[in-house]
Amino acid sequence: MSDKTDNPKRKSSLDLLRPAVRDMPGYTPGEQIADLVKLNTNEGAFGPSPQVMATLAAIGDESLRLYPDPTSAKLRAAAAERFGVAPEQVLAGNGSDDCLTILYRAFLDKGQRVACPWPTYGLYDTLARLQGAELVRSPFHQIGRRYELPADLTKKRAKMIILANPNNPSSTLVPVEEVRKLCDEAARAIVVIDEAYVDFAFGAGIDASLLPYLDQHPNLVVLRTFSKSYSLAGARLGLLFAAAPIVEALMKVKDSYNVNAITQALGVAALEDRAYHEDCVRRTLDQRAHLEGALGALGLSWPEAAANFLLVEIGESAEEVYQTLKQQGLLVRWWRTPELRTKIRISVGKPGDNDRVIAALQKLF
Amino acid sequence: MSDKTDNPKRKSSLDLLRPAVRDMPGYTPGEQIADLVKLNTNEGAFGPSPQVMATLAAIGDESLRLYPDPTSAKLRAAAAERFGVAPEQVLAGNGSDDCLTILYRAFLDKGQRVACPWPTYGLYDTLARLQGAELVRSPFHQIGRRYELPADLTKKRAKMIILANPNNPSSTLVPVEEVRKLCDEAARAIVVIDEAYVDFAFGAGIDASLLPYLDQHPNLVVLRTFSKSYSLAGARLGLLFAAAPIVEALMKVKDSYNVNAITQALGVAALEDRAYHEDCVRRTLDQRAHLEGALGALGLSWPEAAANFLLVEIGESAEEVYQTLKQQGLLVRWWRTPELRTKIRISVGKPGDNDRVIAALQKLF
Repeated sequence: MSDKTDNPKRKSSLDLLRPAVRDMPGYTPGEQIADLVKLNTNEGAFGPSPQVMATLAAIGDESLRLYPDPTSAKLRAAAAERFGVAPEQVLAGNGSDDCLTILYRAFLDKGQRVACPWPTYGLYDTLARLQGAELVRSPFHQIGRRYELPADLTKKRAKMIILANPNNPSSTLVPVEEVRKLCDEAARAIVVIDEAYVDFAFGAGIDASLLPYLDQHPNLVVLRTFSKSYSLAGARLGLLFAAAPIVEALMKVKDSYNVNAITQALGVAALEDRAYHEDCVRRTLDQRAHLEGALGALGLSWPEAAANFLLVEIGESAEEVYQTLKQQGLLVRWWRTPELRTKIRISVGKPGDNDRVIAALQKLF
Repeated sequence: MSDKTDNPKRKSSLDLLRPAVRDMPGYTPGEQIADLVKLNTNEGAFGPSPQVMATLAAIGDESLRLYPDPTSAKLRAAAAERFGVAPEQVLAGNGSDDCLTILYRAFLDKGQRVACPWPTYGLYDTLARLQGAELVRSPFHQIGRRYELPADLTKKRAKMIILANPNNPSSTLVPVEEVRKLCDEAARAIVVIDEAYVDFAFGAGIDASLLPYLDQHPNLVVLRTFSKSYSLAGARLGLLFAAAPIVEALMKVKDSYNVNAITQALGVAALEDRAYHEDCVRRTLDQRAHLEGALGALGLSWPEAAANFLLVEIGESAEEVYQTLKQQGLLVRWWRTPELRTKIRISVGKPGDNDRVIAALQKLF
């Protein structure tokens, strides 16, 4: 049989792609570059709990050989205990990105709408395109250093509304009472609150989570991740909380064995070591205050931060500052999009790393 | 605010599900019951390589803290080296189920068709329903102990054709030349060959894989898994091989960080320890021969097996045999569906486990 590498058939295979997939750009995750100080993807600065590492060391070969529990039962029980909900109200995902994928696949058909305040996590848009759905972006209402919910968010005929709270990349927080109002006003939509960074608000004494109100809003879905305050981005673990019938339906959509056996075990260990977790959050907030003090002294500004990062207003030289820092081995996040191109986002890192970025910025400003 | 648990709004949230999701049954994975001898989900019997366990023990806290490589570059390079393809022809998935999900989401829009010989892996149907697509089942042509490709498989107006080869649950193999003919005849469709069990055919000296012919069939996609011959079902790892432009498009569909950092490292270690892998396959084939000898002596029959399991014809008492074995702590697979209800599928296990199932069946027949 002849080699068909240059056969026109190859083109026809690509023509078989769904138009939605063929025409979309891919999502661009933050750069993962070894040997750089990574202050660009908001990982926790202080590493996972020693109990997590001990659990990892105790993983036996049978945990690898056999399929994992498809329902992540032990992990969901631990999460239910920790967060005061029922296990039937919890779904575990291969990162909270997996939880988001499951939600989009469950609720959004071609041509349907999902709405969110903007700017926010770019993946919300990528997932909409993948479904052939439309993301309607409603600009945050900026008042001074606060980002408030856009008043028209519930008027977009959207089947699903997503709010990252605290928001990424602004680090801003919408108060719980405002979010509860949104759930009530959007009672005919699914309201997804992505609380990836909420532990940092919580650590500052702010009652920022919607989880305590789960039973009172049947259209509410809350997402949590282990990639930030638990320092487990590499293990991939997210949790989704919703009314039990919603979780039951979402179970049909997720891949059967979506969370591997190792990660299920690490998640339980991470939840159980509350003291270590609280200490990490406290140290992160101390470092954030240190960073804010130094950047403020340089005359820089950023929205009021509730998460483990700052969205610093730089102006026209933002790309240049990003490149200069990168040349010095310091990786922060910069986006070319019009609404973000004058800013850089700096994750709060370990003490020495924060001092390096402070020193570099002191030379620039 | 009043408690709204019994509020009719809860119902309206479920009404927001896509009709395809609302109306479908979920996929039922094989039971995962501790303390039973598990011969029901075809895991490798002998556990992962010692080099895999050493790699696991060496995972450091930074591998957990930081996001994993979204492209699984080292793993794909190791797979490319091992299987004689280019890294750009490889995509890594969170299990080969994830690879299948990515394929369905990339190619199948609502109402479009995917075809496969039947009976086969039930997930092919579940994934079609999730997309709102239609799975067209074309019965295998059974000739004696062989399952041959149905002649009408290419005449179903299907955008994608899937063949598990060796097939699950029949353990039968379609010869490479027949599969290549299928790729040629279905040149306007994507042809997915799911080679989850191919190492067991390979170990028996049969040149069963389509991978050497990847460059000659631009519409060909080959799937491999680490859940079977590599004994890594708990870690979730699958590989997809296709022409580079197809892989590039599929990269847009997968979750950004779909394979966790630990599993990426374990996969490299598993691929590198070829001697251990070959030895596991050989020992499995020895055990399969032992099991076949004993079951044959009982007058039982099964299709010619190329994988690490046997689909044993039992007759009307199949469910009863399944239940009796389960009561004795031996878990095999039985399905209620008409085309399978007279059979049980027995995975080839460790020597002692196989002897237990043989002894139990000797009492029954």
